[in-house]
Amino acid sequence: MIEVLRLGHRISRDKRISTHVALVARAFGASKLYYTGQKDSDYEKSVSDVVKDFGGDFNIEYVKSWKELFKGKTVVHLTMYGLDYREEISKVKGDILIVVGGEKVEWEVYTKVDFNLAVTNQPHSEVGALAVFLDHLTHSNYKKFDGKIKIKPSAKGKEFF
Amino acid sequence: MIEVLRLGHRISRDKRISTHVALVARAFGASKLYYTGQKDSDYEKSVSDVVKDFGGDFNIEYVKSWKELFKGKTVVHLTMYGLDYREEISKVKGDILIVVGGEKVEWEVYTKVDFNLAVTNQPHSEVGALAVFLDHLTHSNYKKFDGKIKIKPSAKGKEFF
Repeated sequence: MIEVLRLGHRISRDKRISTHVALVARAFGASKLYYTGQKDSDYEKSVSDVVKDFGGDFNIEYVKSWKELFKGKTVVHLTMYGLDYREEISKVKGDILIVVGGEKVEWEVYTKVDFNLAVTNQPHSEVGALAVFLDHLTHSNYKKFDGKIKIKPSAKGKEFF
Repeated sequence: MIEVLRLGHRISRDKRISTHVALVARAFGASKLYYTGQKDSDYEKSVSDVVKDFGGDFNIEYVKSWKELFKGKTVVHLTMYGLDYREEISKVKGDILIVVGGEKVEWEVYTKVDFNLAVTNQPHSEVGALAVFLDHLTHSNYKKFDGKIKIKPSAKGKEFF
């Protein structure tokens, strides 16, 4: 089981990035996105609408605090300050919770997680880091979705099953 | 040589996502980001500031039209309607231009590129798709940067060389 936690969501300012985080989580095999920060029903709706149309059993849930979520899970915080994920990822086992920031991540997160891992030690994007990490974690074996909308891979256009 | 083209940038609305696109391009080995849409000096500055601090020879350039850029390059458009990148990526050779949208991608893009490729046929994120595609294209061999700021990989904190 793979779940994702998005820290410190701010209404309006983070809506698009947080939506990308959630949709990447879903597309690359996570089953749930938790988020802290400001509860945002628009955010939840835009994610749920994609699930309704494209399928899968993906959920989004607001939580006040991340502390309870860490229990019983292997918690991986993706941060550019962390160890190289390429060297550590094989140690990541069990029920996995992947944590991504947030403009400012509390110091306690760094100390309470099982792994602080970097997808390159360069500044880029929690969306990009999450996508690459999930891709490696799942060995690029992507989940099959059976939604109302099913895209048919096409060389030159937009086709549907 | 790998370059990236971000289509249809809109000032303010796209600033953060477009910045993530540019920083992912840089972190995963591209040497340049072109963008169309609205010219945005704040966007250019935020990308250039990262390059100044973290190193590398990455450039960002506004172009009015993408048409000239396609000449002499292997052009890959990342779109959820495309063929499975896992099956096609080995055919992508030469000087590569990777194209990402944009809320609305002109139809002509689909017909003028060499490859329309999907990183999953699910809706998620141009940032995530670009990161995963570059990661595969470079076989996870990340560029070394030698900037003013150099992060030292750390298990539990924030360290610098």
